[in-house]
Amino acid sequence: MTLIANGSVTTPAGYSAAGIACGIKASGKPDLAIILSDRPATVAAAFTANRIAAAPVGHGRELLDRCDTIRAVVVNSGNANACTGQRGLDDAAAMAGHAAAALGLSPDEILVSSTGVIGEHLPMETVCAGIDAAAAALSGDGGAAAAQAILTTDLVPKAGAVQLESNGATIAIGGIAKGSGMIGPQLVTAKPHATMLAYLTTDAAVEVTFLRDCLDRAVRGSFNAITVDGDTSTNDTVAILANGAAAGAPIVEGTAAAAAFEAAVTEICIELAKAIVRDGEGATRLVEIAVTGAMNDDEARRCAGVIANSALCKTAWFGGDPNWGRIVAAAGRAGVELEPAAVQLRFGGLVVVDGGAPQPLEKPVLAAAVAGKEITFALDLGVGDGKARMWSCDLSYDYVKINAEYHT
Amino acid sequence: MTLIANGSVTTPAGYSAAGIACGIKASGKPDLAIILSDRPATVAAAFTANRIAAAPVGHGRELLDRCDTIRAVVVNSGNANACTGQRGLDDAAAMAGHAAAALGLSPDEILVSSTGVIGEHLPMETVCAGIDAAAAALSGDGGAAAAQAILTTDLVPKAGAVQLESNGATIAIGGIAKGSGMIGPQLVTAKPHATMLAYLTTDAAVEVTFLRDCLDRAVRGSFNAITVDGDTSTNDTVAILANGAAAGAPIVEGTAAAAAFEAAVTEICIELAKAIVRDGEGATRLVEIAVTGAMNDDEARRCAGVIANSALCKTAWFGGDPNWGRIVAAAGRAGVELEPAAVQLRFGGLVVVDGGAPQPLEKPVLAAAVAGKEITFALDLGVGDGKARMWSCDLSYDYVKINAEYHT
Repeated sequence: MTLIANGSVTTPAGYSAAGIACGIKASGKPDLAIILSDRPATVAAAFTANRIAAAPVGHGRELLDRCDTIRAVVVNSGNANACTGQRGLDDAAAMAGHAAAALGLSPDEILVSSTGVIGEHLPMETVCAGIDAAAAALSGDGGAAAAQAILTTDLVPKAGAVQLESNGATIAIGGIAKGSGMIGPQLVTAKPHATMLAYLTTDAAVEVTFLRDCLDRAVRGSFNAITVDGDTSTNDTVAILANGAAAGAPIVEGTAAAAAFEAAVTEICIELAKAIVRDGEGATRLVEIAVTGAMNDDEARRCAGVIANSALCKTAWFGGDPNWGRIVAAAGRAGVELEPAAVQLRFGGLVVVDGGAPQPLEKPVLAAAVAGKEITFALDLGVGDGKARMWSCDLSYDYVKINAEYHT
Repeated sequence: MTLIANGSVTTPAGYSAAGIACGIKASGKPDLAIILSDRPATVAAAFTANRIAAAPVGHGRELLDRCDTIRAVVVNSGNANACTGQRGLDDAAAMAGHAAAALGLSPDEILVSSTGVIGEHLPMETVCAGIDAAAAALSGDGGAAAAQAILTTDLVPKAGAVQLESNGATIAIGGIAKGSGMIGPQLVTAKPHATMLAYLTTDAAVEVTFLRDCLDRAVRGSFNAITVDGDTSTNDTVAILANGAAAGAPIVEGTAAAAAFEAAVTEICIELAKAIVRDGEGATRLVEIAVTGAMNDDEARRCAGVIANSALCKTAWFGGDPNWGRIVAAAGRAGVELEPAAVQLRFGGLVVVDGGAPQPLEKPVLAAAVAGKEITFALDLGVGDGKARMWSCDLSYDYVKINAEYHT
């Protein structure tokens, strides 16, 4: 697996993309993206578990139930088309319909997504004009422009691609993602789900059942393992398109090629997910929380999630405060089995709590262990073999500023 | 039921109290309190559900398992005696032992509590000197001093008392409480539990089983229905002492006197709980979240709790932003049944969302509805009769400052 510099969704063969500004955002920033495959692409997707799902999520779920292949993804930013009732569903369908006409496709070949403000109807004339403009701007190196056009409060675009040998061909997998706030997994759900927008493309041919299972598993350890604020969005969507343009044999479950493909997809998902947290609203540090020794993986995930979302932990991380008591207290309220007298906590390589007791460490030594831009906490609960890993960020003044001062 | 001005734990007959500064806090502020009953008082208590429970919580649980009556409560602030292993348990026992000697009681007549920094051993010489000083300072109007001495990051003391006729006597119920940060209920637990420190006294005689059930029920709708940061503490304790000094007949379950007593206890618990939220770290607004139309009360409580702890909601409240989408989205991720097309949301008396659709309201009208210091959101989920009420506060710059800049 080789990383491709400046890679994105147009790195794999057979894909073009565009991102343009059509005026949905008052700021005039790019707000409409299209990703197009030049042939039918097998599709898998994961959608938000939020019960108040946005219109395009409902539209997308129905599409994926019906169709194994699509040709294009159309995304607008600046308006989430959420809490918009029947008119919202009609608008999502109209968005797919207009894109189909513009691209010479069937509406059932278009997956639509929206992100932005909740509770306002899409300005459909603007959206349709934007779709026309984006369709006209499609290009084989348009991935970076698409990555820009799906952003909302993000400061930086997120994109990447890798290349690997697979079933006799060199295949590529590329991806773009957005997300900065309203980022949080639902720890109570067993089924993995996405917590933002991410689109992956590959020129491998991939059998549809494996593609869907592969995405589910990849999402579980990546997009479903990140949090910025714990607030699962109404619009979260992750989709992968596999168009077979690389001409290798189809990848099917249980083969070495499938394992290599899944490892590559997982790797890209993790990198994009971490990029989202790094760009979390107001974030100054990326924090990895590794929980081991839990009764099972679900309890480990729940425990990591409670720590990852704790306001007291997140403000301590912002302040560079090595307050291990807040981490241990958060674990204690997670509702999972743990043995207080066996708990171990490490800050990076530094053992801070062992056998449930604080180690005799000087404050400067502790402070140095949490001073970096990327820090890792490893907590062992001392009761089993369950483990999980999550990524979070700190809670800063800028988080409050972004979410309190910029009114809807 | 009559409110007694400047009431506290020394308002009921037969109680004395003291609060003094003995040097546990580097600031020199009061840090040791004693509440003493002049005769054995029936006792009930609720403790934190945090699995990493502090030493005094373990000590208190064992005491309450064994004893129906106690004589005194001893509380230190500035040090939580949490995550302190066997030495912490020994220190809690020694604190009770020293207080017993100072007050001429048995160690089994003393409930001890601690609040403050986690992970440091109690300075026992200082604590014992403080107990001696507090014992010497006990007075019949010492409740206000005790209320001061149990504070940590609180800005104001919390105390109150009511008086009512009961079983042929005029009885009083008084209380003090502390809490400002690390305040959060555990929504997953069925058993109510406290989330801070609160001590109630009454001169009524109360049968022990009823007293314990009464406190459980009162805590459920008060201390267990508040949140500041969602971070359940390791030290939470609520206790009530009933010493019978008012000479009325004992109050037993199922009587009119019991109902009146429970209503009064609940009222004081709610007032003290709301006082904690009003004084929440960095709080500028008290927010009531009333959820109705849930499948059952537990789901209503869970939904209210997710909204109450949502970082996006809390920052919007701080900014006076009438962002109803964040409230609806939070309800959607709460993992409870709801009917998207039947959801109704009110800001105070203003219907903002009805039948799942936003109402046509001008921004200034919406903004005015969330501009007050005390605001109420009422959300109906449209699927059943379950209901719950919670109190939260906003998330401000000062919350970040308090928790990021003041290092442990």
